[in-house]
Amino acid sequence: MTTPTTGFSEEASVEIVTESFAGTPDARLKQIMTRLVEHLHAFVKDIEPTEAEWQQAIDFLTAIGHMCDDTRQEFVLLSDVLGVSMLVDAINNRRSAAATDTTVLGPFHMVDSPPRELGANISLDGEGEPCVFAGQVRSSDGTPLPGARVDVWQANGAGFYDVQQPETQPERNLRGLFTADDDGRFWLRTVVPRYYPIPDDGPVGRLLTATKRHPNRPAHIHVIAEADGHAPITTHVFVEGSPYLDSDTVFGVKESLIRPVTTVDDPLRAERYGVANPFRLLTFDVVLDRVRP
Amino acid sequence: MTTPTTGFSEEASVEIVTESFAGTPDARLKQIMTRLVEHLHAFVKDIEPTEAEWQQAIDFLTAIGHMCDDTRQEFVLLSDVLGVSMLVDAINNRRSAAATDTTVLGPFHMVDSPPRELGANISLDGEGEPCVFAGQVRSSDGTPLPGARVDVWQANGAGFYDVQQPETQPERNLRGLFTADDDGRFWLRTVVPRYYPIPDDGPVGRLLTATKRHPNRPAHIHVIAEADGHAPITTHVFVEGSPYLDSDTVFGVKESLIRPVTTVDDPLRAERYGVANPFRLLTFDVVLDRVRP
Repeated sequence: MTTPTTGFSEEASVEIVTESFAGTPDARLKQIMTRLVEHLHAFVKDIEPTEAEWQQAIDFLTAIGHMCDDTRQEFVLLSDVLGVSMLVDAINNRRSAAATDTTVLGPFHMVDSPPRELGANISLDGEGEPCVFAGQVRSSDGTPLPGARVDVWQANGAGFYDVQQPETQPERNLRGLFTADDDGRFWLRTVVPRYYPIPDDGPVGRLLTATKRHPNRPAHIHVIAEADGHAPITTHVFVEGSPYLDSDTVFGVKESLIRPVTTVDDPLRAERYGVANPFRLLTFDVVLDRVRP
Repeated sequence: MTTPTTGFSEEASVEIVTESFAGTPDARLKQIMTRLVEHLHAFVKDIEPTEAEWQQAIDFLTAIGHMCDDTRQEFVLLSDVLGVSMLVDAINNRRSAAATDTTVLGPFHMVDSPPRELGANISLDGEGEPCVFAGQVRSSDGTPLPGARVDVWQANGAGFYDVQQPETQPERNLRGLFTADDDGRFWLRTVVPRYYPIPDDGPVGRLLTATKRHPNRPAHIHVIAEADGHAPITTHVFVEGSPYLDSDTVFGVKESLIRPVTTVDDPLRAERYGVANPFRLLTFDVVLDRVRP
């Protein structure tokens, strides 16, 4: 009767509940559960929810769970709009000042990007304004990285990914896995991406509405870059001038990742890229940190 | 570009995300979301989850959501085993030292208890050891409270509530709503309750297994007592000597709520209760705080 789980009180709540996890065999799980109880109880003591409010929280979490299926992950959306996805990204991607900043993977990398030749056009539906996307992958000391892999995916000019419109977009539309040339350079043809709302017809959308937040993300192209002996980077390049650059609903924008789409009038370069002159160009160089062997 | 949602970093994460909730019209919702972000980010910074661990957390919450339906509330179970249900109970039921301690409502009060006469037998299936349950409802100054309402429900002698066994237990088995007599006294016939496991075939059960916790609650009868001019109380009486009194998986046990089931050899009292002599008796008086008018 004097063991720790009896005699629950506000004062003793953390001690009593963390003690119940004392016998957890896995040290990491024990640490996580202990800290979860500490922070969760601190939150509850801070806001002092009524019983009706706690029930609302239970109902909200339940509705989020019921919204999840094979193609919709509402808990990831919740993590996104609470800045937790960006926080986990930041914690796991502490890079040198020279390296390209990282940002969230997002929920649309659910299918593999098909390998494509440099210069290929990944816009299979032609929806949007044609554009060349090009850059160079370098090590943080400036050395180009020949053979670096650059995985690219994006929404079309209407703001939708292929997996969101399986009936109207070709499979693997606007996705490609490229291998950089001997100078670490990559280039491909695509369309200028458009800003878009995250799926907002569920509980997370209702939370955004209730808090007067919009559901939009500014226009961007997703990039994962990897090279032998280097730490891979998951990031975006954002389109300068896009709406919502200053209020991305998932907090993904970093100044260092914003690039202009310029108009280039240069017949020789147009011919090299296989496009008509003049053409639209988005340039994004990626810098990777060397991994200590 | 210099507005708060850009430039996410570990250092600025709370400031950036709480700022996004600054325009929330409902002041209480704004407070809750702000504090949620503060505590949630503190937790994430504390444990520094890998991306795989964060994905495990997303998967765990999703599985809990998928387990919830009309008769199963897995998020309430999670709240229970993390001590949060007891904490919300404690915060919302700060009573005088004289008043009976409160404990969790639990998930089995989902159907209304039928009004019954004093002395009625609520064990409609007869499963378990017969027992008289009796007590007096008083105000904290000792005054009996005539006409107090006493709502009682419990598991049967096999450890199951009626709603868990709709095919084998009679409807509203082991439930009753009683009105105390002119002296604030109530009495009824029932069976000695049995300890039982909370539903443990879902994600919360897997968490308990992984942390070497058992899923059991010690034997108890649920009581809600109310009287005019007084704050109602939701509580249990626990059976002295029951297994798991010192390790209730939902942290509901308070020393002050444990009572013995005694054997009484008293033909006159047996006749008054309408039972054979000798008989088993569980006594539980309830003290309510007066509400200031």
